[in-house]
Amino acid sequence: MAKVSREKWSKQFGEWFRETLISAEIMDYRYPIKGCGVWLPYGFQIRRNVFQIIRDILDATGHKEALFPLLIPETSLEKEAEHVRGFEAQCFWVTQGGQKPLKIKYALRPTSETILGPMLHLWIRAHTDLPLKLYQIVTVFRYETKATRPILRMREFDFKEAHTSHATAEEAEAEVKEEIENYKKFFDTLCVAYKISRRPEWDKFAGAVYTIAFDMLCPDGRTLQIGTVHNLGQNFSKAFDVTYEKPDGTHEHVWQTCAGISGRGIASVLITHGDDHGLVLPPKIAPTQIIVIPIPYKEKSETVNKKALEITEKLEKAGFRAKTDTREDITPGAKYYHWELRGVPIRIEIGPRDIEKNEVTIVRRDTLERETCKIENLGNELRVIMEKMALEMRREAWEWLEKHTYRTSNLEEAKQLIKERAGIIEVPWCGAPGCGQELEEIIDARILGTPEEEETQQEIDDKCILCNKTAKTLIRIALTY
Amino acid sequence: MAKVSREKWSKQFGEWFRETLISAEIMDYRYPIKGCGVWLPYGFQIRRNVFQIIRDILDATGHKEALFPLLIPETSLEKEAEHVRGFEAQCFWVTQGGQKPLKIKYALRPTSETILGPMLHLWIRAHTDLPLKLYQIVTVFRYETKATRPILRMREFDFKEAHTSHATAEEAEAEVKEEIENYKKFFDTLCVAYKISRRPEWDKFAGAVYTIAFDMLCPDGRTLQIGTVHNLGQNFSKAFDVTYEKPDGTHEHVWQTCAGISGRGIASVLITHGDDHGLVLPPKIAPTQIIVIPIPYKEKSETVNKKALEITEKLEKAGFRAKTDTREDITPGAKYYHWELRGVPIRIEIGPRDIEKNEVTIVRRDTLERETCKIENLGNELRVIMEKMALEMRREAWEWLEKHTYRTSNLEEAKQLIKERAGIIEVPWCGAPGCGQELEEIIDARILGTPEEEETQQEIDDKCILCNKTAKTLIRIALTY
Repeated sequence: MAKVSREKWSKQFGEWFRETLISAEIMDYRYPIKGCGVWLPYGFQIRRNVFQIIRDILDATGHKEALFPLLIPETSLEKEAEHVRGFEAQCFWVTQGGQKPLKIKYALRPTSETILGPMLHLWIRAHTDLPLKLYQIVTVFRYETKATRPILRMREFDFKEAHTSHATAEEAEAEVKEEIENYKKFFDTLCVAYKISRRPEWDKFAGAVYTIAFDMLCPDGRTLQIGTVHNLGQNFSKAFDVTYEKPDGTHEHVWQTCAGISGRGIASVLITHGDDHGLVLPPKIAPTQIIVIPIPYKEKSETVNKKALEITEKLEKAGFRAKTDTREDITPGAKYYHWELRGVPIRIEIGPRDIEKNEVTIVRRDTLERETCKIENLGNELRVIMEKMALEMRREAWEWLEKHTYRTSNLEEAKQLIKERAGIIEVPWCGAPGCGQELEEIIDARILGTPEEEETQQEIDDKCILCNKTAKTLIRIALTY
Repeated sequence: MAKVSREKWSKQFGEWFRETLISAEIMDYRYPIKGCGVWLPYGFQIRRNVFQIIRDILDATGHKEALFPLLIPETSLEKEAEHVRGFEAQCFWVTQGGQKPLKIKYALRPTSETILGPMLHLWIRAHTDLPLKLYQIVTVFRYETKATRPILRMREFDFKEAHTSHATAEEAEAEVKEEIENYKKFFDTLCVAYKISRRPEWDKFAGAVYTIAFDMLCPDGRTLQIGTVHNLGQNFSKAFDVTYEKPDGTHEHVWQTCAGISGRGIASVLITHGDDHGLVLPPKIAPTQIIVIPIPYKEKSETVNKKALEITEKLEKAGFRAKTDTREDITPGAKYYHWELRGVPIRIEIGPRDIEKNEVTIVRRDTLERETCKIENLGNELRVIMEKMALEMRREAWEWLEKHTYRTSNLEEAKQLIKERAGIIEVPWCGAPGCGQELEEIIDARILGTPEEEETQQEIDDKCILCNKTAKTLIRIALTY
């Protein structure tokens, strides 16, 4: 595989990401409010396709899409004590309607548990109302005081959030597993590699019993949280008095979960696959999957253009998202550059000699490998290539992640790896929160939590990296965004 | 046509609408903030389908979907003087981030012209950047002081807004015409009838040169504004200094339009077609187009259920959105009630005797007419029925609107018609704003404006209904929502 260099962007990742977002027309971040950006038409098309993937996955597991209001009365937000403590400092507050101060101020939703609360209280009556599995795709707001970054840390960003209510703790637990499987499917479709960790107690979602998080590794050695699933227990159902009548006539508070993926869902795919030429999009989410570029040659230009348009039309009829670039004021080379930057998975080049031989050249965006193909075989060949491409992109992402995941019992080595920005470090841990928090300070990195993947659930026979007591589990450490 | 009675709901329209929204699971309006409601899963599916229609229409005319931020710095909102005067009293204001007051307060978008302004200033440089035709589908916020009503007058509601920039006044003018054609297509697809009026000077969009509006007539004789198209001239481009370089090297401010359809786009279809049994949805937007109901009979129930599921599967494969209702705890009659309420266009009933004869009964939701159909012809027959249904629903809506549109030159008659809530009244007018505003007071109704339909553009030979001077045009008057 003749991969395009990613050396450069792995050293200057932040800059690469910011520049590519604007030059590939994904997001313009120059809006006059910090942390707010404009999704440009091309970026928005990718967004549409990514949203469709999550919709299909959630619809298939019986989640129903709904839409709840943006504004939260302060009186609602306050109902769950942990929750308000975690979020109030992060809220934008509406205090004024027209020229008048409001009697109760409203938060812009930072997340929606306290928006659903009063409605679930009205809706859920009997065990036959359960499970109730809802989701919505909305923008949420957090008054970030840290440095904001386009898509990665915004003050306004999209959120695909699922909220479920169940009759028993076991069912809520099973739902957490289902959400994890859903998110695995989602990121697998995006060809993104991830680690799944149970966040430590001191870093769970405000109001949750526990939090499971998906993290990816950025090329600069920092992890990015790209999805979370929370078991809420009865914390919110008690706060909002959401109960159901059991078959025996007694009442019980429902058991709840919630889960969310932000705009980082899209960032994850751009970051994982991009290279020095720009974006590389998996065919499934590419707004244009195939760009056909006629190579004009003197008096034959018109014939070539016509053939290119004809091929595109056939591909469209066969179900591909294909386009011809017939612009006359720029060279084929400039067109290659234009579409490579935007990550179009397949380029087809066609010139007068190709037409004579009844063939075209196919170029894969991820490897830039070229091959010729008879025009009559084009549909089938492209289907094979796109499937192969997705498989290889996924495999490559996983190989890279595994290569940058380290396991050590040696504190100095762990420190050194973090210092070198090597990736994710797994170390043995006694399980005491004190030890965990001290570890974060000593290593100057964050604890992602304990591995949640089944294959890493085995017992470990080791000592805690810090206190030397018997280790209970592995714990993951990394620099984080 | 044996239409279901609409007598009742035309007298108690408000109540009917509110009750149907909740019982048919469109919107729950009991959220603890006035003017904010929850789109329930069934309503949300209709919304998805309606949004798809407008997306397809706008995509086809070269509008590109983007997404702009929600928050507007007060300094941006203030830039266009008329605009801020029109909107500032209607804004929700964010004044606080976390515990701290913000230096500049932010409005929640009541509309987005002043959000696009600073970005267009950055994007548009040369005549080759024009025309720039964008749209977005978002929620907007207006601090309504009037009585709010679900979907009809909300404080948070969805907005499908187009924003375009052009090189010349003529191109902007042509774009207004294109937007009008787009909206005609949209409402035609929803089988909704409308009048298109040029709003009087004193009722145009704040900051526009002129405003063209689509109004529908509700069964209670009040009109509802369901779509608007505005020619903005250079008002906003001057305020935000959006210029382009012409081929000759000089600079000029761009010419702009904007257009929008709110959640009332969905309301319009529910209101136009609903009856005493509930909603009636045109097949194109119905989440379920066909509901198959097995009529069980003793030991044959299982065979019937199996056949029903088999038919549904075949219909789905043929591209219909079909569903079987196999619930065992309720009667077929209760199922009819359930799906009629939700407006499912076609019901198929199948019992043991139908199976013997290899046929089913088809029931159209709008007329409740029944017919039998051989199972092997079902797909074709349903396609024909659905097309016919849409045509007849549209025709019926137009007939109703025309029947309730009156023309008179007699002031007393006009007054009387308004008093009787008869509908839309067209009267001759001299064109003087004073006369128009006086007319509004005397008749105690609103002026919708002058007819914009081509077929009503003819000259009129009459005297102004108020001042008796020569009339320039017709003007429409109605009670409005």
